[in-house]
Amino acid sequence: MTDLVGLRLELYNASQVLSNICLVHAAKWCTEALNGLAPISEPFDFPPIALDEDERKDQFNFMLARTYFNCKEFDRAAYTLRNCVSGNALFLRLYSIYISIDKRATEDTGGMLSFGQPKSLPARPLGGTHNRDPETPSRDLVDGLNGRLSTIVEEAEAYYNEGGKPNAFLYYLVGLIFNKRKKTDLARKSLLRSLTLFPYNWSCWQELLSTFAKYDEAKDFIEHAKISDSSFSSSIMFRMFELVLLQEFYQQSDNFNDQLVALSEIFPNFMFLKVQKFLFAYHRLDYYLAESLFDEILAQDPMRLDDLDTYSNMLYVMEKKSKLSFLAQFTSQVDKYRSETCCVVANYHSMKGEHDKSIMYFKRALTLNKNCLSAWTLMGHEFVELKNSHAAIESYRRGC
Amino acid sequence: MTDLVGLRLELYNASQVLSNICLVHAAKWCTEALNGLAPISEPFDFPPIALDEDERKDQFNFMLARTYFNCKEFDRAAYTLRNCVSGNALFLRLYSIYISIDKRATEDTGGMLSFGQPKSLPARPLGGTHNRDPETPSRDLVDGLNGRLSTIVEEAEAYYNEGGKPNAFLYYLVGLIFNKRKKTDLARKSLLRSLTLFPYNWSCWQELLSTFAKYDEAKDFIEHAKISDSSFSSSIMFRMFELVLLQEFYQQSDNFNDQLVALSEIFPNFMFLKVQKFLFAYHRLDYYLAESLFDEILAQDPMRLDDLDTYSNMLYVMEKKSKLSFLAQFTSQVDKYRSETCCVVANYHSMKGEHDKSIMYFKRALTLNKNCLSAWTLMGHEFVELKNSHAAIESYRRGC
Repeated sequence: MTDLVGLRLELYNASQVLSNICLVHAAKWCTEALNGLAPISEPFDFPPIALDEDERKDQFNFMLARTYFNCKEFDRAAYTLRNCVSGNALFLRLYSIYISIDKRATEDTGGMLSFGQPKSLPARPLGGTHNRDPETPSRDLVDGLNGRLSTIVEEAEAYYNEGGKPNAFLYYLVGLIFNKRKKTDLARKSLLRSLTLFPYNWSCWQELLSTFAKYDEAKDFIEHAKISDSSFSSSIMFRMFELVLLQEFYQQSDNFNDQLVALSEIFPNFMFLKVQKFLFAYHRLDYYLAESLFDEILAQDPMRLDDLDTYSNMLYVMEKKSKLSFLAQFTSQVDKYRSETCCVVANYHSMKGEHDKSIMYFKRALTLNKNCLSAWTLMGHEFVELKNSHAAIESYRRGC
Repeated sequence: MTDLVGLRLELYNASQVLSNICLVHAAKWCTEALNGLAPISEPFDFPPIALDEDERKDQFNFMLARTYFNCKEFDRAAYTLRNCVSGNALFLRLYSIYISIDKRATEDTGGMLSFGQPKSLPARPLGGTHNRDPETPSRDLVDGLNGRLSTIVEEAEAYYNEGGKPNAFLYYLVGLIFNKRKKTDLARKSLLRSLTLFPYNWSCWQELLSTFAKYDEAKDFIEHAKISDSSFSSSIMFRMFELVLLQEFYQQSDNFNDQLVALSEIFPNFMFLKVQKFLFAYHRLDYYLAESLFDEILAQDPMRLDDLDTYSNMLYVMEKKSKLSFLAQFTSQVDKYRSETCCVVANYHSMKGEHDKSIMYFKRALTLNKNCLSAWTLMGHEFVELKNSHAAIESYRRGC
């Protein structure tokens, strides 16, 4: 039996902490979970965030840096925290630097996409490979980026070498960088450390998930975790992770349904779980069930754009023209500059046989969110329609 | 003698509240003030934000809406708060709608500038004036915008009619809308109400300042305030307001210096006050003093871009070529997409006689920040250089 009262308190605290350190997407997930909990009659007393001694020393500077971060002044936020001592302040400083590097890398390429290495925060190219593609970022740019990212990892390591208190968010950031640089084992280790310290950071679980290329790897990981740390592997967050893993690797087991039912009892109003159910039905090609599930999600949370790209892919396959056309109009009204909107509009144009326009919108989706992998694959289909096989192959390759 | 300990507590609380309700620029000003205070030896105990009964009812939803707001999902934030009861929740709901309207108005015009009515959130055109300029927004668009803004004002009024507790931020938002619609008296009244309830919202003081077209009006206002409410008019925030007013209306009185000295004793490290001193010297054409003052600001807060546009105007007049060239490079590195950066780069190109490029950057500055009035005037100068007198006159008109 899950301790709902305790879980509510933990989610509340976690949501405050995540907002406080500017991990906005993780804070969003966590607060949605909090609001998705089954009703609890017991009153709640809204405890404040507890600050340790180091955090108290940093607090005024930390608050200032956070306002700069919220105003998108990342370099200034980092500079403000230069003399801080707490782990969270070091995290916010290094995270600001990380965001600033990423932003600049995107700007240096003019936000354009190229067929070659992904340009922002690219992995180090293989040694000795001479780079002949003029659109691929120069070795200098890549080395420069890697150098600056290495500095972040080194600073985090120096903090620990000097006896710094273990900090979940520093481990998360280091794991993120290792993962970008394809150092999978190191990434996994660091992300896992972060999650044992602070399990409610969904962005960290997602990053961990992305380190697994095959289901077998993930399965081994889960089994190992279950043997070595049963309290961690039986926690709500680990169960969420396992659920998404089964869904993402198309594992059509009863296990998925059992987990989903159990978690939905705890979180009956958590849209995230409904989306997992939708995605599971979608992967199983049970489109009519998937459609009705998503319609339910839209009825309850009509301004939600997350996952609408996948939904529109399905409507395209189902040839639901008027629904897709309505969706394209609606999402454009809510926010033109979201990758989900661009994918919906791209699907709409593809359905009308306007493949050039469709490609333009898929490109825009990728400019807005370089992790939107399905857009590469779908753009590949559009290039096939236009008989541009070179571009099609390149697109499919990038979508893997 | 100012009660520094009490002031620190008030600024700390205000900073928390402003961050909490997503007024990020006001939070930045307030937290800079907090960090700019004279050192206080007395320890500080970091009190949490107090929630009243209504706010407790709304808290989980409010937190969720805030995470959506921080992820730029404004419509979703507004929708999440549809059943909330507290004044702050109503504010965040209406403010999200306001931002969403403004964002869409900018997008509908493709972010482009036109020579005609300012396009985003335009004032209602005079009745009966037939609109022949194809670049001016259509009557429908203007009416639509005004209609949606009116709804915000009506909802705020309905809240008060139903006995809602006075809320500083609702008054601020209503004042903002009245001011946009040139209803100066109503705007001033609403903004003043907001400030008596919550004096630490600098954005509100700025809005109040912008309601005064002439110094005499402002002077009357200040004198009236001093007679009718001496505790309000002797408060720190009112004194800040008076200081900026003297500076903005080029009032070269001893009064300014006295106020500045007194406030600088309370806030010896508050960059904002140093900037006022710089601007005062700049308006007095004392460029060498102004330059050394700004160099000091840059040394202490090197990643700060605020006011660099004005500084670069001065370097241009002083013909400091290498300094302006360095500044153009530096600001572009920190953030290409800030209006200040674009103004610096525009000045740099103008200095090199590249007037077309200069105009392009001034236009970009105005696209990024439509309130950047000096860019209009400077762009006017560039058009004069290019002997385009029609465009020059239009630019000068818009810069008034």
